[in-house]
Formats: sequence, C-alpha cells, structure tokens
Amino acid sequence: MNAPDIPAHPSSACAARPVPEALLQALAQRFGAQCSTAMAVREQHGQVEGSIQAPPPSAVVFAESTRDVADAVRLAGDHGVPVIPYAAGSSLEGHLLAVQGGISIDVNRMNRVLAIHADDLTITVQPGITRKAVNDAVKDTGLFFPIDPGADASIGGMAATRASGTNAVRYGTMRDNVLALEVVTAGGEVIRTGTHARKSSAGYDLTRLMVGSEGTLGIFTEVTLRLYPLPEAVSAAICSFPSIEAAVRTVIQTIQLGVPIARVELIDANTVRGVNAYSKLGLREEPMLLMEFHGSPASVKEQAEMVQELASGHGGTDFEWASTPEERTRLWTARHNAYFAAINTRPGCTPIATDACVPISRLADALLDCVAEADASGIPYFLVGHVGDGNFHFGYLIHPDHPEERARAEQLNRQLVERALRLGGTCTGEHGIGVHKMDFLLQEAGLGGVAMMRSIKQALDPGNILNPGKIFTL
Amino acid sequence: MNAPDIPAHPSSACAARPVPEALLQALAQRFGAQCSTAMAVREQHGQVEGSIQAPPPSAVVFAESTRDVADAVRLAGDHGVPVIPYAAGSSLEGHLLAVQGGISIDVNRMNRVLAIHADDLTITVQPGITRKAVNDAVKDTGLFFPIDPGADASIGGMAATRASGTNAVRYGTMRDNVLALEVVTAGGEVIRTGTHARKSSAGYDLTRLMVGSEGTLGIFTEVTLRLYPLPEAVSAAICSFPSIEAAVRTVIQTIQLGVPIARVELIDANTVRGVNAYSKLGLREEPMLLMEFHGSPASVKEQAEMVQELASGHGGTDFEWASTPEERTRLWTARHNAYFAAINTRPGCTPIATDACVPISRLADALLDCVAEADASGIPYFLVGHVGDGNFHFGYLIHPDHPEERARAEQLNRQLVERALRLGGTCTGEHGIGVHKMDFLLQEAGLGGVAMMRSIKQALDPGNILNPGKIFTL
Repeated sequence: MNAPDIPAHPSSACAARPVPEALLQALAQRFGAQCSTAMAVREQHGQVEGSIQAPPPSAVVFAESTRDVADAVRLAGDHGVPVIPYAAGSSLEGHLLAVQGGISIDVNRMNRVLAIHADDLTITVQPGITRKAVNDAVKDTGLFFPIDPGADASIGGMAATRASGTNAVRYGTMRDNVLALEVVTAGGEVIRTGTHARKSSAGYDLTRLMVGSEGTLGIFTEVTLRLYPLPEAVSAAICSFPSIEAAVRTVIQTIQLGVPIARVELIDANTVRGVNAYSKLGLREEPMLLMEFHGSPASVKEQAEMVQELASGHGGTDFEWASTPEERTRLWTARHNAYFAAINTRPGCTPIATDACVPISRLADALLDCVAEADASGIPYFLVGHVGDGNFHFGYLIHPDHPEERARAEQLNRQLVERALRLGGTCTGEHGIGVHKMDFLLQEAGLGGVAMMRSIKQALDPGNILNPGKIFTL
Repeated sequence: MNAPDIPAHPSSACAARPVPEALLQALAQRFGAQCSTAMAVREQHGQVEGSIQAPPPSAVVFAESTRDVADAVRLAGDHGVPVIPYAAGSSLEGHLLAVQGGISIDVNRMNRVLAIHADDLTITVQPGITRKAVNDAVKDTGLFFPIDPGADASIGGMAATRASGTNAVRYGTMRDNVLALEVVTAGGEVIRTGTHARKSSAGYDLTRLMVGSEGTLGIFTEVTLRLYPLPEAVSAAICSFPSIEAAVRTVIQTIQLGVPIARVELIDANTVRGVNAYSKLGLREEPMLLMEFHGSPASVKEQAEMVQELASGHGGTDFEWASTPEERTRLWTARHNAYFAAINTRPGCTPIATDACVPISRLADALLDCVAEADASGIPYFLVGHVGDGNFHFGYLIHPDHPEERARAEQLNRQLVERALRLGGTCTGEHGIGVHKMDFLLQEAGLGGVAMMRSIKQALDPGNILNPGKIFTL
C-alpha cells in the first residue's frame, strides 16, 4: 500500500559461475558436432551490449529436438551452470547476455511447423521458427498470424518477451495469442501448458505465466498460436498532422469510440525524414499516422470515414490510400524499417531504444513532455509508436564514443519511464525487462510484487540456472 | 512427454484443521460485530454440496476494507488456520467449502466502485460488487462490461474462477478483461499486479496467474476491468435447426469465417421446453441458436446476413429478430434463466452441471457423442452451450434421494470430460476446478503441470492457509 523505498539492485553481472571442464566434456559427448566452443560462435551468441559487460557463453548447443533441450538443461543443471535460450537474437534488453556465465541453447534448428489446424485457427510450431515463416506456412489457408515486432523474431523469443507490434491494438499481444506451450523445466522435465480449446478455467494459467518469463522459468520447445482469418478487405492510409498532439488526439478518440482499427502507428517528423531517405518515399515531413483497416469492404469504408472525420477535426490532411497489396507492403516495410532508417540519419551512431506504455488518455501528455525533454537534450532522436495501445518508442541516437551522450540518453529514458509509471503505465510495453530495466520493474511492481516473482522463480528453478540475472536478481 | 499414470488424489476433505479458541477471540477483538460465529451465518457460507461433506467455517469475517482482509488473513495465518474468500456464493465446483476447516472472509460489503476511467475504458472496483452492479455504475458512460456468467456473480469471484459467459466469443473471458489487481497475500501483505496500460512486458504476469487461482494464491481486494463502448447497433435473433449437429455446424463455419459475432448460444430441445414453460415463451421446441450481433448498423446487417446464409445451408429457419431492447432483454433473460427453467422440468431434482470446452472443429463430434450417452442413460438432462467458444454444459437432473442416479450422472460427466480431453480440450471452460475436478486436472495438465502449480502454491502460501484443498491437494 505504501510506496516502498527502492533499493539499488546488485549488478546482475555478478560473479560468472564457473563452467567445469566436465560439463563441456559431457556436452561434447552427448551433442558431438551440435555443440561448439569456438570463440566466434560463442561471441555471436552473447554479444557485449550497451553498458553491460558480460563474457560470451562457454559453449553453444544447437538443439534439434525437445530431447536435446531437456538433455542440455539437465547436464547444465547437474553442474549448477546457467542455460540461456537463443534463437533470432533480436531481443533489445540484454536477455541473451551470459551475465552469470553459462551455455547458450540455440533453437534455430527447431524451426518446423508441427501442425496447422486451420479449422480451429491454430498452428503449432517449434520455437526457432520466425514470425514471417509462420505466415509463409499458412498463406494458402486464408489465415494469418498478426503479431509483428520490428525484427523477424523467433516465435519462442516473442513468447518469452510477451512481444507485440503494430497489430496488437486489434489482435492483442503474445499474451493473448499463445494458446499452449511445451516447456522444458529447470529439472529437464517436459511439461505441457494449456490446451487447444479457446478458453479454460483449469487451474493456474501456466501458459500466461511462461509467456513473458524471458527464459527464466522454462525453455519453450513447442508453441501453439492463434491464427485469424485474412480480412476480406484491407485498406491502409497515411495522414499528416500539424503536431504530434493532433495526431495523438485523433488516435485517442478513435480508441475511445471503439473503432476496430487494425493498426495505427505514429511516426514523428524526424522519423519521416529518415524513412524518406532510406526507403525512397516522398512523404510529407510532418508527424504522421499510418493506419490499416480490416473487415468487410463496407466495414473498412465505414471505419476509415470515421477516423478521417476525427483526423480532420485535428487538422489532419486527407488520407492518402495504399490500396493495392504492393503499395501496402511498401508502406509497412517502410514502417518496419523506420528503426534502421532513423539510425542512418546519424551515421555510426548507437540507438538507445525506449519502450513505455501508458493508459491511452494520458498518451498526449506523456509524449509531449518526453518530446520537450528530448529536444532540450540536444541528442538526435526519433519517435515511433503503436499509439493505439499507448505504447511508444523514442530512439536516442548517441555517439558510441561519447559516454556523456549515453548518460544523457539514459537519463532521458529514466525520466520517460518514471513519467509513464506516474501516469499509471508500464516501463515496457513489449521489449521486456532483461538486464536493463530491473530497477524500473521494482518501481512498477513494488517490492511485494517483485518478491512474489522471485518466490516463483526460486520454487521452479531452485538452482537458478534458467537465464539467471534477468528480470530481477536473486 | 509420456502419459503419466494418474494416481487417485487423496480426498481434499482430509483433516479439518483445528480453529483455536485464541483465534476466535482475536477475531472478535479485532472485528467486533464484523465477525460472526452464529451457526446460521456459518452454514450460509459453507453449504454442504453434492457428494463432498465439509463442516461450515468456524467464523465469518465481514471485511469492509483491504486492511480488514489483510488483518483477518494475518490472524488466521498466525494460527495456521485456512481462510476462504466469499462473495456472491454462486460458484459451482465447491470452491467455498471449508474442506479443511477455517474461517470465511466475506467481502460482500466491499462492493464499491473506486474509479471509472471512461477515457481509458477501465473501471476499478472492490471484489464484492456484482457484474450487474458494474454495468449499472457505467450505464451513463456509453460503456459496458461484457462478462456474464449465468449468476449475478461478484467480480472477485469471477476473477478467481476465470469466468466467462455468453459474450466471451467476442470479448474474451476474465483472463482477458482483468487489467490489474490488488491482492492480499498469504502473509497478509498487500501487493498490486498489472498497471492501467493495455499491455506490458514487465516481468511475470502475476495478474494472469492470480486470475483463475480460486482463492489459493491471494485474496483480491481491488479489480481493474476493461470496459467496451456500447455498440452503435445491436441485433439479436433466434434460429431453429432440425438437429443439434446442424446448429453446431453453422456455428463452426461462423467462427472459421471470422464473423465477429458477439453471442452465439446453443440450447437443445429439452431446454427450449423448459424455457417455454418457465419464461412463457412460445419458442419452437427444436435445437436453437440465440445470437447477437454488435457493430455499426451496416456491419450488424452484414454479419447477420452472412450467418443467415450459413444457417440456411444447414436447414435453419429464417431468423426471428428481437430488435427492440425490451425484446432482447426478454430473450437473454430467458437464456440466463435456462438453468432454472430446465431444473423446473423435474421438480425436486438436483442438477449436476458439466463444463467442458473443445476446439471448435471438434464441437459437433463431442456434442453428438455426449447426447447419445445422455439419451441412453435415461437421466433427464438439458444442454446449453457458449458454442462459439466450443464450451458446453449438460445438466443432468438427478433425484437427490437416488444415489445411483448421481453415480450415473457422474459417470456421464467423466465420459464427457475425458472425451473433451482426448479432443484437445479442457475439463472446465469457465467454472473452475474447485473440489470436484482435481482428478480431471491431473489428466489435463499432467503430473508435471500440476506439480508446477503445487510448487507455486507452496512458494506463495507456505502455510497452505489460502483456500486449501482446491484445484489440487498438497
């Protein structure tokens, strides 16, 4: 009830635990060529990132089956050595760093589709498959999988970080779209969570507990996802606004009216400039909304008219339509490349990405204050947002050799997160906690909430071998 | 990976733990008139139900605040005595039985609305408020709360059992609609889970872990719910079919086509007969779908036309429309009263309710086999279903003085659940496990899954005082 004092957490990069030679020998014996201790392979699986220093993992196991994962976990567990699941490597919060040493379990070879149940709108896959590959696999069924983080991330990683993306405003996040899991536990056992039914009241919701647990409670070896019928009609449009506030007020009203918009993305003028240069688009260099409407032809038309009317009331331009699939793909590819496009505006820079999410009514306030602070800092930045969810990302483009720029960017991020928390929001909408946001989690969930998470972790992984030093320290 | 042998679970009604006089005195001192040990009050809070015998709780605390709940939990915990949260008392699986003795914490007086954030489409309430009272509270905001189990259940109880109802096919269940909680832990501490943001990747999803935990991990003292804009247009229709199969095939196609139908309820001919007698409706006594469409006027028309076409293809009659709010209310009241109506068809009977849920593609097979078995049993029964979710309820109407009828009904339920599990479904779509489905949960989640649930329980409630003997035994 009372705001607790937040203690400084000890560095998660505490002592790297020793990886005994006996474990490396046992792995070599069990896995042969599926196990590598080559430095190049190890470094690829545990890049030093940002301000956190960590050694690479001592070995990488290329798992090809659930059995492989279970055996690797069991062998590591026998020696008290951490295991870190790895797939696309696109996580942003240091989830893959071997901050306490250990071995990496690479599941990229576990990338098969195990079953498509088109009649039930579900697909069961191995964790190493990427989101684009899932959509390729179902493209003849009339169904699609909507969750689209910027990168072509793996489904296992997306489940582990509770990822979302541009479609979440209509289709939800990984929380809503993972129906069932197969999980290797800390003891190397294999359990199943959830069923193929759409809903259930059968005991604790282990699926939802696992989704977002960042590899700290189990390693996913199968994931059953919800699919959706491809909408009969799809229209995408862009609309420019005189200010970020005008764009955001349009979004807020859209959500409050219950318009079932499928995507509504904000990009600021800085980002538009980057996108124009990178993707060769001639967009008006003003704050802009990218929108997509799904439904029947009549419903799409109706939704678009409603949002156009709201936009006009805030000084938005007429919609420019991307009606053909090719134009739409071009537009959304540009949006997904916005991150790289923006980075290109400051050659050689390092981006520091933020990821707060606030209640929709507070979005304009949150954004405007963050923009003012970013402008005042003098650090180049860009702003994009899944604004229908209240989720936004500033990217601060710092010079890697200027530590004071990093310090200023981290200060901006701190102010941004603390503002989001004051407004009833969260420190991370979709990237996760990893090693970078442990202090923020304490502020958000409180000592009691984090203590509960720790208790669960200790109960399910008493040896603390599953991706230790992430989310919280023990 | 391998199907485990399922051991018989020990009766949850094992030893009732002693409730020391010192605890009763401490409660009397702390709570005065808010604490009762009168037998009538105790019996009302722990009715003997079905085949499970349990004593009433030794005392009932009428909590009026979070502080009251925390203090009651702490006092009980000091003596190792169980606490059982109580509100509307409408649960169906014996959740409220004091199978190991203990005290009841009645939260009916905690029934206030704490905040309505209409702009964010959320409401924060105390746990004792009922779903109808929530809708009364927001009726001037243009918003509504869609989750509607049959009873006018409390929000706390609905969250604790992960309840749903007729609108879940479009609006989800309590899993999807609880955004944040305030929870009193086993230690009597108060924590908050979740935020007011629509999505988050901040650590373990404690909100989803708590939702559906049936009072075994914490007692809810505040619940923040999602609200939805009242649809611009609403139309309800009924359609009769020559067979259950024809009705169900219509529903399956509707879902597979992605029609955003808001409600689609099956009632069988037995139920129609009961409803006609009870609610004075002149419905055709054939299997029937009750449907509701939400959206803009054009979208509602479009959805209805699409489903009418599917229904016609399966021999459905023309839709009969309930277009005015009064007609709609009459229809849905009849649906919500179907349970009582059906019971009335066998005066003096006791209903045994089932609650399985299967993947939608298997719904017809599941229902037809269950109908055949029920018909062969000779026991009067009725069938209703939230069939858009694959969730259905048989009610077997047994004579309370004929134990062999109970045995036959329980055998039917067992066959029904095991069939649902074989088809990839769940033993409970919305009622929970309670004391009645512990064996089924073992079959569904496996020994490993239930072991994980037990570990979590032991970590968060080491004294096993929070509603013990529910979901699983320790």
